[in-house]
Amino acid sequence: MTDPASPSLSEGVHRTTVKVRFGDTDPYGIVYFVSYFRYCHRAIEEYLRAVGLRPEKTFKNVEEGFGLPIVEAWARFRRPARYGDTLRVETRIQEIRSKAIIFRFEFFPETGDELLAEGTANLVAIDRTWRVQDLPEKVRRALGA
Amino acid sequence: MTDPASPSLSEGVHRTTVKVRFGDTDPYGIVYFVSYFRYCHRAIEEYLRAVGLRPEKTFKNVEEGFGLPIVEAWARFRRPARYGDTLRVETRIQEIRSKAIIFRFEFFPETGDELLAEGTANLVAIDRTWRVQDLPEKVRRALGA
Amino acid sequence: MTDPASPSLSEGVHRTTVKVRFGDTDPYGIVYFVSYFRYCHRAIEEYLRAVGLRPEKTFKNVEEGFGLPIVEAWARFRRPARYGDTLRVETRIQEIRSKAIIFRFEFFPETGDELLAEGTANLVAIDRTWRVQDLPEKVRRALGA
Amino acid sequence: MTDPASPSLSEGVHRTTVKVRFGDTDPYGIVYFVSYFRYCHRAIEEYLRAVGLRPEKTFKNVEEGFGLPIVEAWARFRRPARYGDTLRVETRIQEIRSKAIIFRFEFFPETGDELLAEGTANLVAIDRTWRVQDLPEKVRRALGA
Repeated sequence: MTDPASPSLSEGVHRTTVKVRFGDTDPYGIVYFVSYFRYCHRAIEEYLRAVGLRPEKTFKNVEEGFGLPIVEAWARFRRPARYGDTLRVETRIQEIRSKAIIFRFEFFPETGDELLAEGTANLVAIDRTWRVQDLPEKVRRALGA
Repeated sequence: MTDPASPSLSEGVHRTTVKVRFGDTDPYGIVYFVSYFRYCHRAIEEYLRAVGLRPEKTFKNVEEGFGLPIVEAWARFRRPARYGDTLRVETRIQEIRSKAIIFRFEFFPETGDELLAEGTANLVAIDRTWRVQDLPEKVRRALGA
Repeated sequence: MTDPASPSLSEGVHRTTVKVRFGDTDPYGIVYFVSYFRYCHRAIEEYLRAVGLRPEKTFKNVEEGFGLPIVEAWARFRRPARYGDTLRVETRIQEIRSKAIIFRFEFFPETGDELLAEGTANLVAIDRTWRVQDLPEKVRRALGA
Repeated sequence: MTDPASPSLSEGVHRTTVKVRFGDTDPYGIVYFVSYFRYCHRAIEEYLRAVGLRPEKTFKNVEEGFGLPIVEAWARFRRPARYGDTLRVETRIQEIRSKAIIFRFEFFPETGDELLAEGTANLVAIDRTWRVQDLPEKVRRALGA
């Protein structure tokens, strides 16, 4: 699953950073739990790019007639992060099934090893009529499955 | 422009309330200026509903081949509002031209008369190819122009 | 846990509606999974109000020195909802422990019984130093525990 | 106003890129006008960092008792941008007055010169009681005024 051309993906772990922005916190300056789910989606987008898949042709591909909606998401928030912080996100594929992908996320301080938050997101392949189908071969190959 | 069936629209002024939500503030608990623009869009949606236009068939109407994108927006933020506040939004049509509508917004405390923020949003009618065109007759009539 | 004064809360189930707004969807008009988590937080806010707790004094109460951060959240997205839809949210307390509350959410079409999405959010009581503590008595009583 | 140490700021123009994210569009895949205002705020944050000011100590500085709230914002949206696009943002200081700063933003395709959107944001210096005051010397100097 490694991509030697992409320094962001190594040994199946994709690393990116996220700056906590002005609108990402709760009224007390702590990252709003909802923002973490946005960060997770962004991490998937970056992961896809790192393996050569364009997100705008992967989450939904009108021409090829498939979609990859998120059907389940979970996260645990262990320690507060704050406005001005930069987070390091490590993204892995936890599991690939014939019709589904489960991404796993871990958030750390930019230069620390303390787990701030962790989560998962399950994507399922569907066809034009929203029926579950096998993962498109192109996606499967790019993800190394 | 009044709609006797809709208590929310009277003498051309549409009134609605907006609760400041947990994710709507900056890290210091003050409503983030970006959230006001979201509130403005919501106020337009409610205004449209009050005159009998379904927003999801008005901002873009695929069947009838028109769109009404926002091409300009402005707001001034006079006094801080906070998480937990409820705001009263008064929305008017400031101007209707042959191809454009300008909405005007004023934000007050739910039961006060102190102007918290004010703004405008300009919408322009376009056809399927994004060329500016006359406002659809249905929209023009509903808005009382 | 019922509150006869509040029609929105009955038999421990709080009902509210959420309109899918212009900025709540993905690029294809389907409600973005992140928006559901925002809706869940709003449902908690409304639940708290229905039992007499002001959200802005409950998620964090500086004077009384407690907080109720969300430490875990989960959701499953069963069927797509779209821009223009109105959703009915049913919120229950799934469990109250000595130091934690788990809310459970179910999303339906405004007038239908088809489950669109479901989720949970776990809140934990903390003191000024972010140490876990017992739920404040006021909160516990209001929630009927 | 140039900062030779920062390649992102040159001749008073700060350049950064913004990827249009999954939640940034309207239901039709076009960047929601509200998202542009978020991008503007991010551009200010990056501009501040480029001149050595930490945003989390600049928009509000509790210790030094000043704030720099946005009191006015305006934008014009000229051409649609879409999910998957990368935008180039050019940020300038349009004007510095004794108590205020006006930032100006221009959005282009990452590698093109077609103006997609433009805007301004006015910040005013306030003291702890929200009274307008002179810009803090530190801010003024960093911005080259």
